[in-house]
Amino acid sequence: MSTAEQINPPPRLLMGPGPINADPRVLRAMSAQLVGQYDPAMTACMTETMGLYREVFRTSNEQTFLVDGTSRAGIEAALVSLIVPGDRVLVPVFGRFGHLLAEIAQRCEAEVHTIEVEWGQVFTPEQIEAAVVSVRPAVLAIVQGDTATTMCQPLADLGEICRRHDVLLYCDATASLGGNDFELDGWGIDIATAGLQKCLGGPSGSAPISVSPRAVEVIDGRKHVEAGIAEADDIGRGPRIGSNYLDLAMVMDYWGPRRLNHHTEATSMLYAARECARLLVAEGMDTAIRRHRLHGAAMLAGVQGLGLEVFGDVSHKMNNVVAVVIPDGLDGDGARTAMLEDFGIEIGTSFGPLRGRVWRIGTMGHNARKDAVLVTLAALEQVLRAGGADVTAGGGVGAAREVYAR
Amino acid sequence: MSTAEQINPPPRLLMGPGPINADPRVLRAMSAQLVGQYDPAMTACMTETMGLYREVFRTSNEQTFLVDGTSRAGIEAALVSLIVPGDRVLVPVFGRFGHLLAEIAQRCEAEVHTIEVEWGQVFTPEQIEAAVVSVRPAVLAIVQGDTATTMCQPLADLGEICRRHDVLLYCDATASLGGNDFELDGWGIDIATAGLQKCLGGPSGSAPISVSPRAVEVIDGRKHVEAGIAEADDIGRGPRIGSNYLDLAMVMDYWGPRRLNHHTEATSMLYAARECARLLVAEGMDTAIRRHRLHGAAMLAGVQGLGLEVFGDVSHKMNNVVAVVIPDGLDGDGARTAMLEDFGIEIGTSFGPLRGRVWRIGTMGHNARKDAVLVTLAALEQVLRAGGADVTAGGGVGAAREVYAR
Repeated sequence: MSTAEQINPPPRLLMGPGPINADPRVLRAMSAQLVGQYDPAMTACMTETMGLYREVFRTSNEQTFLVDGTSRAGIEAALVSLIVPGDRVLVPVFGRFGHLLAEIAQRCEAEVHTIEVEWGQVFTPEQIEAAVVSVRPAVLAIVQGDTATTMCQPLADLGEICRRHDVLLYCDATASLGGNDFELDGWGIDIATAGLQKCLGGPSGSAPISVSPRAVEVIDGRKHVEAGIAEADDIGRGPRIGSNYLDLAMVMDYWGPRRLNHHTEATSMLYAARECARLLVAEGMDTAIRRHRLHGAAMLAGVQGLGLEVFGDVSHKMNNVVAVVIPDGLDGDGARTAMLEDFGIEIGTSFGPLRGRVWRIGTMGHNARKDAVLVTLAALEQVLRAGGADVTAGGGVGAAREVYAR
Repeated sequence: MSTAEQINPPPRLLMGPGPINADPRVLRAMSAQLVGQYDPAMTACMTETMGLYREVFRTSNEQTFLVDGTSRAGIEAALVSLIVPGDRVLVPVFGRFGHLLAEIAQRCEAEVHTIEVEWGQVFTPEQIEAAVVSVRPAVLAIVQGDTATTMCQPLADLGEICRRHDVLLYCDATASLGGNDFELDGWGIDIATAGLQKCLGGPSGSAPISVSPRAVEVIDGRKHVEAGIAEADDIGRGPRIGSNYLDLAMVMDYWGPRRLNHHTEATSMLYAARECARLLVAEGMDTAIRRHRLHGAAMLAGVQGLGLEVFGDVSHKMNNVVAVVIPDGLDGDGARTAMLEDFGIEIGTSFGPLRGRVWRIGTMGHNARKDAVLVTLAALEQVLRAGGADVTAGGGVGAAREVYAR
């Protein structure tokens, strides 16, 4: 192994459902040298990052910070910190990531209730309220955008429903945040989590999170500072949170004014997360979302212009990803391999019932760009033709150009 | 917040107990662009990284990989995956991080038994075996190097003791790996975990781990593939692991030939972890450990040459950190601030009973270098003098130079 070479990944244009190419400015931010864990420059950087993510989540929540892990770590941190074993949790499932929320809630020893719609659809507020009334959960856990189906669940009414029935509302915004409307305070969401590797334009490995005051109260009601650093007045209270690493009561004490030692902050990922948010905020959240809407519309028009069918309820599609039905008789995985090997472009497959039935093509973060859309459509046309599909020559790029010309 | 500037941390020489400055080559590796999660280049990079960490841990364990989080995530992944609620776990505590292992084991609902020695000491194998006989634990969890006290616990006899009594042996090697002798196979350790931010010379945020075949058997006996990706023959077995994110049975399926989707690998941290190991392996593990021993000896001689007292049993000190007793009457925190603000050099404080009593000075990873040692000693002499301490002029640098001249 002593002959291992320095890292030299092949150039790829990542147009799948994420991870996507990181913005080069984010990669450069990660190459900044480290400072100590309690260096004033470090704590200032943490505090500044909290402020930037308040703008990204559109919230005034003081408790807006990072969990040191991938987006999945953020999900589990939120659920394990909220859920007391035996709590009823309601999960509306409209794709793979709903199953994930249910699975994580089960491991937190919740009594989990799910409702489901067919893949490719979303829930109405009435369906969700009826389930809330029937289940009477402590927590409603829902995904905003499920990349497995590309659907974007409307959330605007859920906060009011949850408050009316005294339910805490958790939302997994990993795939959607930064590319689709999201209003943490406006919609009454108690906890939302995300990741960097989708519309935020960074690498996986840091999970932005925001926690409302009423969720903070629940979580702080379960605070048990760990032995070895607890002081005399740190008397544990409430049912202890099942994880140490993902214990948000302790993580909030680390990010808060007390700066109580917990993990050693992943400084390079902090730099990355900060830069992702800084670029979005400088662009303007509304502008960034409009950019995702534009390039998503161009990609949608493009694949339709090639004569391909799109999966699911397009009126509820996320801006940043489209599911394309693989034409009958075409080797879907072979086409993906040709896209990657011949053109250096990655598009995605899907999971479960959609595995082998659709490709997923993303336009997000740094890759929500005209050149990325057009080159992907141009290559896809060639690959479809080579695979024997009936394809409209120039139809993909032409339809996308029309969207851009509007 | 839209006025936030690009990241520009102040230049610091990090000579505390870690995190330390990352090797610039590791930072450059992190600036490499991403590839897709299942790109052949990505899976090849993961496989290569597994091989490199086998050399770092000195093991032939197939299951040698990364947990996506800080070193603490690696500890919790190991313990939550091994411990079935109700299991007895024995933790010999000789510093803060022993308390952490006990705390995490408690959250895994183990029946935790601890034995303790005074801070600054380590255990004899006989003390540990007597406790094993008395407690009859399922798991013995122990720290190799506890930065809180600088002690390095001898481990060579523990594997045999554990096998004799049918106990699984977990070791937290976060602070020691790469800078002190460590023989995973040779010492019969079942699981070891680490972090990048100490002797490996990288940023915090990735936790290398290695799992022995007998520990794999225990963990795989608890495998429950999550809903949404499970296939017909994925029948859950054994008591389900309490965490999804830190479920090593699933993480091993992601790193293994099945490549079963779990989290989205934190690619930039993978690049960092790979580069840390690549540099160590190219240097040679024995050479790297000798380098830490040399510069640690120079720093020890240097602080003693300044007339300072060293805390703890120096014959069991880690190579990479020394605890220096703060001279009577000197403002310890004021001196640390002067080191940082006037000289750009960070040294550490400690925890619990040693808080305010010692400074901790590290020589590890990229900073296990002659110039880093000498400049730290030169600055410390000035700060001590300015603080009114009785200090031997030139005594620190002089004593360190003598070590280098040997």
